[in-house]
Parts: sequence; structure tokens; C-alpha cells
Amino acid sequence: VLPTGEILKTGVETAKGVVGYDLTRLIIGSEGTLAVITSITLRLIPKPSHKRTLLAGFADVAQAAGTVSDIIRHGVVPTAAEFMDRLSIECVREEIDISIPSGTHALLLMEVDGDALTTKKDADRILEICRQSGAVHVESGATAKEAENLWEVRRRVSEAVMKLRPNKISEDVVVPRNQMVALVDHLARLQGKYGLPIPAFGHAGDGNIHVNIMYDRNNPAERNRTDAVVRNLFMKVLHLGGTISGEHGIGLTKAPYMEMEIARPAIDLMIRLKKAFDPEGILNPGKIFLS
Amino acid sequence: VLPTGEILKTGVETAKGVVGYDLTRLIIGSEGTLAVITSITLRLIPKPSHKRTLLAGFADVAQAAGTVSDIIRHGVVPTAAEFMDRLSIECVREEIDISIPSGTHALLLMEVDGDALTTKKDADRILEICRQSGAVHVESGATAKEAENLWEVRRRVSEAVMKLRPNKISEDVVVPRNQMVALVDHLARLQGKYGLPIPAFGHAGDGNIHVNIMYDRNNPAERNRTDAVVRNLFMKVLHLGGTISGEHGIGLTKAPYMEMEIARPAIDLMIRLKKAFDPEGILNPGKIFLS
Repeated sequence: VLPTGEILKTGVETAKGVVGYDLTRLIIGSEGTLAVITSITLRLIPKPSHKRTLLAGFADVAQAAGTVSDIIRHGVVPTAAEFMDRLSIECVREEIDISIPSGTHALLLMEVDGDALTTKKDADRILEICRQSGAVHVESGATAKEAENLWEVRRRVSEAVMKLRPNKISEDVVVPRNQMVALVDHLARLQGKYGLPIPAFGHAGDGNIHVNIMYDRNNPAERNRTDAVVRNLFMKVLHLGGTISGEHGIGLTKAPYMEMEIARPAIDLMIRLKKAFDPEGILNPGKIFLS
Repeated sequence: VLPTGEILKTGVETAKGVVGYDLTRLIIGSEGTLAVITSITLRLIPKPSHKRTLLAGFADVAQAAGTVSDIIRHGVVPTAAEFMDRLSIECVREEIDISIPSGTHALLLMEVDGDALTTKKDADRILEICRQSGAVHVESGATAKEAENLWEVRRRVSEAVMKLRPNKISEDVVVPRNQMVALVDHLARLQGKYGLPIPAFGHAGDGNIHVNIMYDRNNPAERNRTDAVVRNLFMKVLHLGGTISGEHGIGLTKAPYMEMEIARPAIDLMIRLKKAFDPEGILNPGKIFLS
């Protein structure tokens, strides 16, 4: 539903379609600023018959990141390749009983799926690559229950890091996969420089890392440092060829930083597009664009 | 380059990115009406190590179309699934020596790829499904040379149909895959009603069929009938839940038919978007939208 009241159906229900401009993709990710979506038709793909979950621990981040690149270079595309850094691992370790050796400073949690043959072949290949890359610990979830236990480590992390500080600023930056090591190295420097813990975890296969800046809102010295940390982080991410948001968008809190990534003429164009949809500015005012 | 002179870079070089509106997708398929593209970065995927080409002939179209759906339902997604109807087959048969039996009224040319194991497994599964669906002829290109020969049938068709009439209107309509039989049946009725040959071939896996309306431009009676054939075809396609263009877009020749598919408020919105990019209307004037 357009803010001017017209009701549209965008896109096609066929595998392809190129009639007119792609309004669907323009509205996706527009954070409610262009139209109200009342109905969505999704395309489904056949559910794979098998999947396999694998956990690998490494002594350092460079090994873990390199392993993800190696795996993909070998033509295996895991459906998940979750990364956890040392601080994240330690936080979870204090909460649940995990079998990861103490020298583990980076974890990869991976999943492959497909038919029985492909799944086994891909899982074996991944385990082999992990061992060759010097993994200190490798585990494979053979049953659904075992796989669930492996995932539990990752599922706990977002809550577990709250023991470091009462407040969290979570950024979902993305860098090219081969720049992940540079990003994680930089986080260590940021922690040293600003004195705030910054655990990181996320989707290593995409280079999409959730960077969690932990602070205490009631400590003015810490609170006042967070903007500088965010700005420094974003500068590094953009310098590495990345983007400041892989999934969560701009909203209110990232609006002040948007011009670090998007050049002024592109922002001005986006504002004109917004006006073409919403001349009165009634949909989600103040979001994405600083007014 | 915007028509107003600004130079933008849209999109990200990472696997994901959701900062601001998706200008890349808006410009893709805009047929040169929004911006001039001077540079494109493409994402590459690993080249599969193996592929296999398969040809199956059927006594009727319903069997061929049903076979494509069966294959996909079994979790095998061919990288190509090209369809040719009876008239297309006959045109090619007159030009090259093909081993297809005379009762063949529909052809499927399929390709699968992946690693050696998956490719063989998928190819065997497809051949089995073809035989179960009552294929009158099944062939597998074991070598690259044999595969090339199979593809030659498909490659010849676009030129071969020109023997039916000197002129051709080629539409690239798409219907949901399970409506392909209804579409091809309708083409037979159209040929009967308007007295023009209408060979059809195309991407069966996508439901994207190239419908070729053959006529003689110097025969006014035939020429005058083509608009009615196109309009009748598009009405049927839209009634079946399809779209009037899967790949080639609107340009000049489809502009008069665009409102059959896109409702007026959506066209008006697209025109406002065009103005937001190109207030002077200097980029590809007259394309897509009837002026």
C-alpha cells in the first residue's frame, strides 16, 4: 500500500520477469519508508534430505578465517559457517559445559546439506581441510541431538557476552571474506585503545561479523567513548572494502554514519525516490535519512 | 552516471549489504532509462568440474512439461532444461541430420553439472524419470563432442523457423511451470484461429517460452493479424499467472501492452521514479512507457 493510498502488487509469481522497474527489490530493505507490505509470496526450494553439523576450534583467528576461504575455494559451499572469537568462546564456556580445549581462540560452526552422498562427501572434505589448517579440535554432530548441542554454543553467545558489561552496541558489519582477519585484528587494537571489551561472532561464510561493543551506560566515560569506537570501526570496515550493515539496516541509530558509506549524490537520489513514493513523508519519518 | 551528471557507485562488493535503497536492482532492467552504466563488478561462482547433456523426445507436450516438473520435484535442478515443440523440431529436422524418431512432438534438452558423483547421479535420475514418463527417445552426450551435437538442435531452431515465413515476432513470455501445457495447447488454438505458424521453444525449467509468431510483412492480411495474436497470447499468459517478458523487457514494441500486466498506479509510480532520476527525460526517451 503506497502512502498515497494506492494498492499495488509488485513482482511476478514466475521464475523470471522483467516488465518495468523492479519495485519489489526497491521496497525490500526500505525499512518501512516507501510502502506498507500487507502480503508476501515467497519462493520455496526443495528441502534437502540430509544435513551435517561440524565444529572446529583453532588456535588463532587467521587459521579459522583462512579455513573458510579454503573450503569455499574447494567448491564446498556450507549453508552455515558461523565464527566465534576468543572472548565469545570464553563467555559461553562459563555458562555451559563445552568440550572445547582451552587453547581455542576461534571457533567455526559449519553446516552442509544435500542428499546423503553429497552431504557426507562435503562434511569429510571440510573436516580434512580443518585438520590440514591446523585445527586444535574437530567435532562432527552425527545425530540431530549432537548437532543441536554444537549449535547451543552459538545460540548462547549473544546473551553470554552481557556478563562483560550491562550494555551492548551490536554492529553487523561485512567485509570481503579475505579481509576477516584484518577486521578481527583491528578489533583487538580497538579494545586496547578504548578499554572496552568487543567480542565478535557471526557469519564467516559471508564475511558478516557481529561486532559487540560492550559498555556501561551509567559510566559516562565509557558511554562517551562508544561513538568514537563505532566511527573507528566503520572507517576500518569501509577501508577494507566492506559495508556498515549486512542485515539490519540503518534505522535511527546508524543514520548519522550513513554518509561514511554512501556518497552524497546517492543519498540525495534516495531522498528523491522516497519523495516519489511518499510526497508527504508520512511513512517512518526520520528513519534511514538524517532530517 | 546519472542523467543529471553525478557519478555514483551502487551496491557492495561484499556478500551482503543493506545500507539505503537498492539502487543496483532498480537500475538493472531499467533499459537505459535511469542511468548510464560504465562499470559492472560481477560475482563469480566456482566452475563445476563436470557436466552432462541429455536429450529426451516425447510424443506429446504434456509429457515433456510434466517431466520437467517431476525432475525438479525430485530435488534435481538442471542448469538447463530447454524445450522445443513439434513445429520447431520439424524445422530443424529439415536442416540437419538428427536421430530423433518421427513421432517426437516435444523435445527436452537438459544439462546438469556439479562434481563427478552428483552429475552422474542427477543424470541417471533424469533419464529414469524421462523413461517412466514415456519418453519415445532418450540420449545422453557422454563426451563434450556428443553434448555439442545435442545442443546443435537447439541452437539451430531460431534460424530454422524462418523457413515458415519471412518475418517473426518473438515473445518471451513466462508462465508458472505447471501451466506450460496450457500455454502450448493455447498456441495450437491461436495457430488455428489466425492461420499463422507459431513455433515455440525455450527455457522449460523457468516456464519461459519463446513464442514465435511467423508472418509475411508484405502480406497485409497476415501483418494486420499479428497485433491480435500478440494481445490474445498476452491475455492468456497473464490469465495463467504469467508475465509478458521473462528476459527481454519492454523497449518500444511491448510498450503498448505493458498496461495489460502492470496496473496504472504502478506505472505512474515508475514514471515518478524515472523523473527522480531523469527530470529532463534525456535517457532513452520513449522506451518502456508510452509517452
